[in-house]
Amino acid sequence: MALGEDPAGMAGDAHVVFIGRIRSPWSERSQCPKNLRQAREDGATATVEIDPPYRDGLLGLDGVSHVIVLYWMDRARRDLIVQHPRHATRAKGVFALRSPVRPNPIAMAVVKVLGLDQAAGTIAIDAIDCLDGTPLLDVKPYYASTDAVPDAVVPQS
Amino acid sequence: MALGEDPAGMAGDAHVVFIGRIRSPWSERSQCPKNLRQAREDGATATVEIDPPYRDGLLGLDGVSHVIVLYWMDRARRDLIVQHPRHATRAKGVFALRSPVRPNPIAMAVVKVLGLDQAAGTIAIDAIDCLDGTPLLDVKPYYASTDAVPDAVVPQS
Repeated sequence: MALGEDPAGMAGDAHVVFIGRIRSPWSERSQCPKNLRQAREDGATATVEIDPPYRDGLLGLDGVSHVIVLYWMDRARRDLIVQHPRHATRAKGVFALRSPVRPNPIAMAVVKVLGLDQAAGTIAIDAIDCLDGTPLLDVKPYYASTDAVPDAVVPQS
Repeated sequence: MALGEDPAGMAGDAHVVFIGRIRSPWSERSQCPKNLRQAREDGATATVEIDPPYRDGLLGLDGVSHVIVLYWMDRARRDLIVQHPRHATRAKGVFALRSPVRPNPIAMAVVKVLGLDQAAGTIAIDAIDCLDGTPLLDVKPYYASTDAVPDAVVPQS
């Protein structure tokens, strides 16, 4: 089900700046894991690359075990609001899915930090589910106290 | 420490659309909890309001216990890259902080769903740490399998 107006063609209410890129092993959609679980099973690591103007933002991240990465799924269409994923038994709204196709194609992943190089602006991470070169929007420290809900439930579709 | 160029004044690499608003009990910064832990301790619930064109996106969210909410901290400046929060003993980069002040002022909260009204476009949630009327960017289902890391560590600052 499509939106009446495609957000990609709208004027926009605010703008984002790309502060870096994600370096992943995948340069084509056909190779790319469909989600973070698949990516983790693949066992391939990745790198978050931060552009020079923003590298000071990494100060104090040492010792942080996990980060939240926000990235811009720049190849995803934005005009669908209900979708029928191949793995699901019924159609679902985009807010009930983690599909990159959504009005604002912002993906979120919780990843393990394997290494940090502030001067080079890089964070080595255990896995990611996007194409090489995907634009980076933000990195945040992951706090188990508020971000971890081990007993959260999503019903089987 | 300020950035050489303020992202707020840059052309932007992509645009976001506001798909709704967050209704919270706080209309002034002085009342607003500083983070989600504080908000939860306050015990005040909140509501995610989705605008009519996007309400079909809630289809299939019933039964989901927790959602990830992405919202746009529209009052936050974007030009600081290192900050010294009042509670911290030393200055930190924005990627080591959950401060709303960052190049892309996107906040992320994991919240409990208390109620869902697809026709009205509302999700009642247990807590939020932003001002009433804060623009909404996205809602995603929370998957414990990939989003919950109970043993994640952030060293004491």
